Amino acid sequence: MKKIQLLDFVVSHQINKIAILCDEKVWKLYPDYFNFLQEVATVHFISIDAKEKNKDIESVVFGWNFLLEQKFDRNSLMISWGGGTICDIAGMIAATFMRGIWLVNVPTTLLSMIDAAHGGKNGINLKYQKNVIGTFYLPEKVIVDTEFLKKLPNKEILNGFAEMIKYALIGNKTLWNELKNITEINYKTINPNWIDDAIEFKMKIVEKDLHDNEIRQILNFGHTVGHAIERLFAEKKRNISHGYAVAMGICYESYISWKKGNLPMKCYKDILHFILRFYKPLNFTKSDISALANYCCDDKKNKNEIVRFIILEEIGKATITEYTQNS
Amino acid sequence: MKKIQLLDFVVSHQINKIAILCDEKVWKLYPDYFNFLQEVATVHFISIDAKEKNKDIESVVFGWNFLLEQKFDRNSLMISWGGGTICDIAGMIAATFMRGIWLVNVPTTLLSMIDAAHGGKNGINLKYQKNVIGTFYLPEKVIVDTEFLKKLPNKEILNGFAEMIKYALIGNKTLWNELKNITEINYKTINPNWIDDAIEFKMKIVEKDLHDNEIRQILNFGHTVGHAIERLFAEKKRNISHGYAVAMGICYESYISWKKGNLPMKCYKDILHFILRFYKPLNFTKSDISALANYCCDDKKNKNEIVRFIILEEIGKATITEYTQNS
Repeated sequence: MKKIQLLDFVVSHQINKIAILCDEKVWKLYPDYFNFLQEVATVHFISIDAKEKNKDIESVVFGWNFLLEQKFDRNSLMISWGGGTICDIAGMIAATFMRGIWLVNVPTTLLSMIDAAHGGKNGINLKYQKNVIGTFYLPEKVIVDTEFLKKLPNKEILNGFAEMIKYALIGNKTLWNELKNITEINYKTINPNWIDDAIEFKMKIVEKDLHDNEIRQILNFGHTVGHAIERLFAEKKRNISHGYAVAMGICYESYISWKKGNLPMKCYKDILHFILRFYKPLNFTKSDISALANYCCDDKKNKNEIVRFIILEEIGKATITEYTQNS
Repeated sequence: MKKIQLLDFVVSHQINKIAILCDEKVWKLYPDYFNFLQEVATVHFISIDAKEKNKDIESVVFGWNFLLEQKFDRNSLMISWGGGTICDIAGMIAATFMRGIWLVNVPTTLLSMIDAAHGGKNGINLKYQKNVIGTFYLPEKVIVDTEFLKKLPNKEILNGFAEMIKYALIGNKTLWNELKNITEINYKTINPNWIDDAIEFKMKIVEKDLHDNEIRQILNFGHTVGHAIERLFAEKKRNISHGYAVAMGICYESYISWKKGNLPMKCYKDILHFILRFYKPLNFTKSDISALANYCCDDKKNKNEIVRFIILEEIGKATITEYTQNS
C-alpha cells in the first residue's frame, strides 16, 4: 500500500532517475525493498554509515558529486531511507542540488517516523555544533511503513519513544495518559495510532510556522538541554543517543517549568518518575553543569543573547519563555 | 539615502551582529562606506578575492566557520558587498547558516545591480558546472547605489550591459529602442532609469515564479548557450566574463529564434549588428561547437533529457520552447 503511493508519485511525475540515500544496515536487512521502482526509473543506491560524525559537509559533497556524475536533473528524485541522520543528509543534498530536486522520505526508525522525516528541517553539523547548517525543504511525500520497526534494535525504539513523550507533554494529554500505562517499551507495545497522532500534531504546528520563528519552537521542548547534553558528550568523545539526551532534557526542562513557571510539582514528579523508569539518569559534575548552561546559550532559538526555553504550563500545553543569560 | 534605509532596517530589527562579505577590491576603494553601521552593531568584514574559481564550497565553509566562531545567531545579518560572485557566496551562506539569517545585498557592479542581487537565487560551482549547487533565498533588502559604477572598470560596465540587452529583448521594446541609439558604453551613458526598469521587470517575473519552474526561465535567454560558452572556456583554462558569454549567447539564441521560431530575420540582424558593435565575435572550431551543443543539454532548465531554449517571438517577447536532444 505504502509502496503503491510511491510508485504512483514516480510514474505520475515522469521521474527518470532516483538516488536512494540509505543507511547501509537498512539496505542489508531489506535488499529487495525498492525493486518495484527499478521497473519505472533508473535507481541508484548511495549507502552511508549512518553515524552522527558523518552528518557533515563531506557527506553532502559526496552526494552532490554523485548526482552530477549521474546527470541528475530537476525532475530527478532523492529518497532518504533510514533514520534521522540519513533524512538530514539527504534533505540537505536534495534542497541544494540544482536549487532543489524532488525529495521523498522513507523513515525506518521510530524517531524519524514521528519526527525527523516530517516538517522539512534538514541539517548537518559544523565543528561542535549540531544541525547548525541546513535549510527548510519540505519532502514531497513521507512513506511511514511501521514494518521496519520489527527489525529495529530495542534501544532505537527507546530513542524514538523520547520524542513520543515530548509530543504527549506539549500537546496531547490523552496520549500522555495512554503512554503512562505502558510497562515495557518495544515495537509490540508501540500503538501505531500514537505514531499517527504525533505526526498529525507536528504537521499542524509546521503548517503554522514552517520557518521556526515562533510556535514551531515548542517542538524543541527537551531539546535545549538535550542538545547541550549531546554536545557535552561529543566533546568528551562519549556516545549518547538523541532520544536519551532528549529524555534527560525533558526531565530538566520540566524541572525549570515547575521552578520558574507554573507547572504543578505533582506533574513534574509524574514526568520524572515515568522517564526514569525507562531511561537511567545521568550524573553530571559541577563543571559539566556549567558547560551545559553555556551550551544552552548557543541554541539556534536564541536571539540577541536572550535564551529561549520551552516551558510546560500543564501536561499537554507548552509556551515559549525568554530569559536573559544571567537569570 | 540608501544608507539610511539600511540603518533603519538594522535598528528596527535590533540586529546585533553584521558580517559583510565583500570583494577585497571594493573594500579598498571604499574603506569607510559602512562606518555608519558600526555605531549600532558589531560589524565584521570577510574579504574575498571575488574570482569565479572561489565560488565554491570551500568559500562557503569558510564563511560558516566565521559566523560560528563569532557566535552569530538568527537575528544576525549577512551583507553581500560586491558583484555577482560575492552575492552568490553570501546568499548561500546566509540561506544555510542556522537554516537562514537576514540577508541584504549591496551590489557594486552593473551586472549585480540589475540581476544577481535580486530574486533570491544563489549558487556555487561544483567541478565543471556553474551554479549547480544553491538555494532560493530572498534578500530582505537590495541597496542599489549607482555611485559604485563611477569607479567600475569599463569592461565591467560592458559585462552588465549584456544583461540589460537581455531584459530589453525579452520584455521591454521601449528600452530596446533606447539602447539601440547608444554609441558608446560607459558609466556615463547608462541611464539610471534603465537599471530601475530592468529590476522592475525581473521582480515581476520572480513574484510569479520564485522557484524557476516556468515563466522565470525566460530570464535565461542567452544563458543556455552563454553558460555553455563559459564552461568551454573554463575547461580550456581561458577567461571570459559572464556578460561577454551572455552577449554571444544572445546572438546564438536569437539565431535559433529566427531559424526554429518566428523571429523575423530583420530583428535577428538588428540584434546581431547591435551586439557585435560592442562585443567582438568569438571563433569556434567544429569540436567546440559539438562540445557547446552537449553542454546545452546539461542546463538546469532541462528535464528528462528535453532541452529547453528561450525563444524570442519578437523584440520584447520571449517564450519557452522544448526540443528533444537530437533535434
